[in-house]
Amino acid sequence: MISKNQIKFLKSLLLKKNRLKHKQVILEGYRLIEEAIKANIDIKYIVLTKEECNKIQKRKLFYKKDLRIISNQDLKKISDIKTSQGILALVNISQYQNKQLANISNENIIILDGVQDSGNLGTIFRTCVWFGIKSIILTSNSIDPFNLKCIRSGMGSHFYLQNIIQTGPEEVIQYLTDNNYNIIVADLEGKNISNLNIENKWALILGSEAHGVSKCFNKFERVTINKFGKIESLNVSIACGIFLNKLVNHY
Amino acid sequence: MISKNQIKFLKSLLLKKNRLKHKQVILEGYRLIEEAIKANIDIKYIVLTKEECNKIQKRKLFYKKDLRIISNQDLKKISDIKTSQGILALVNISQYQNKQLANISNENIIILDGVQDSGNLGTIFRTCVWFGIKSIILTSNSIDPFNLKCIRSGMGSHFYLQNIIQTGPEEVIQYLTDNNYNIIVADLEGKNISNLNIENKWALILGSEAHGVSKCFNKFERVTINKFGKIESLNVSIACGIFLNKLVNHY
Repeated sequence: MISKNQIKFLKSLLLKKNRLKHKQVILEGYRLIEEAIKANIDIKYIVLTKEECNKIQKRKLFYKKDLRIISNQDLKKISDIKTSQGILALVNISQYQNKQLANISNENIIILDGVQDSGNLGTIFRTCVWFGIKSIILTSNSIDPFNLKCIRSGMGSHFYLQNIIQTGPEEVIQYLTDNNYNIIVADLEGKNISNLNIENKWALILGSEAHGVSKCFNKFERVTINKFGKIESLNVSIACGIFLNKLVNHY
Repeated sequence: MISKNQIKFLKSLLLKKNRLKHKQVILEGYRLIEEAIKANIDIKYIVLTKEECNKIQKRKLFYKKDLRIISNQDLKKISDIKTSQGILALVNISQYQNKQLANISNENIIILDGVQDSGNLGTIFRTCVWFGIKSIILTSNSIDPFNLKCIRSGMGSHFYLQNIIQTGPEEVIQYLTDNNYNIIVADLEGKNISNLNIENKWALILGSEAHGVSKCFNKFERVTINKFGKIESLNVSIACGIFLNKLVNHY
């Protein structure tokens, strides 16, 4: 049985400052928790209703996990989703904190400059992992990538990224220049991506849908996606997917 | 000033059955309303706070529009978003209702088979319009494309689609076969899209992330996107964007 203090603690993790302080987050639902187990993430304990506990005790994946029963009523206090599956996990994310640019190996990078929508951010993480990207840089004005909505739309992709780095745009430019990256910026006014052929190491910078990228990125090569219709812009995560498919596959 | 009955009516449109019955929906926020005006959509009237009314009366775009003042308190009763911009519009969508397969011209089509997430559906609409797609078919188990969240994530793309057709998968197959379409199905087990080269008229079918496409679509050619990482699947709207970029650009 879970204690009142534990419930209070779990609830406190809905706030960013507490997630940062304790370096812990909550995962909700089977799919996310199963992904975390498979990815060998440090799970502190799993909180679940009696009903769910009876279900999963037979399952190998949950063998030797610290399971703590909670009432439906108390679960509602912690849960962030409308129709809870009756299960959540407390997870240690200290391995993702305080990552530096120096942690990046000699590899392609996605840089998100001020992306503010949690759903988009999570979807971009998921897309990056699909295309084998291991390092993502968020410039200082980005949202917390470990907020619950972002984790949810990331569908476990957070656990497969080696570096989620938060830093300023000037530091990023210095790092990329020092390390001979091909720097490309997604921009509606850029040249068509079909004409782009980058064989060497690259860094792709995507800005917010409302404000684009920070001024300091304007000097680099800008690319866009062929437009055929009347709509003003593409969703940033869609653009990211199309660029990645092109850059990674070289066709 | 807006009447109590009008407020009651607007509030009733939060329910699908009432949207269907009255063939009207609410658009919230400047961006959506401006897109609707530009696209010449039939706007019944615009409801806004006194403050917003003072702002926009000078703007050409809102010239000769029927503006009705509402109190902040009453607006909250209708609004579906947390931080309202203080403006919404009642819009006639009868032109989008009861569209049939026969309304489609000789053109490429996107078919969404059971896509259940409103945010994804709206983003797919937006992506389709970007790539010049004019007709989208939703098979019968899909959600209402005119729910508020879908309209919001569509960012005005609904107004640029000529046909949003809801029908059954069997009817769709009959139509596509009769009209000599190249039918392709997005499927994780399909062949790599980089090997695909379709010059003629095509129809691309995308299923739900959880359940894929209906069985009856399994007999058609299946395509997928090259995977490099450990994650199980791509978001359906991201997949749609990558496929469209390939199909429309032929590279």
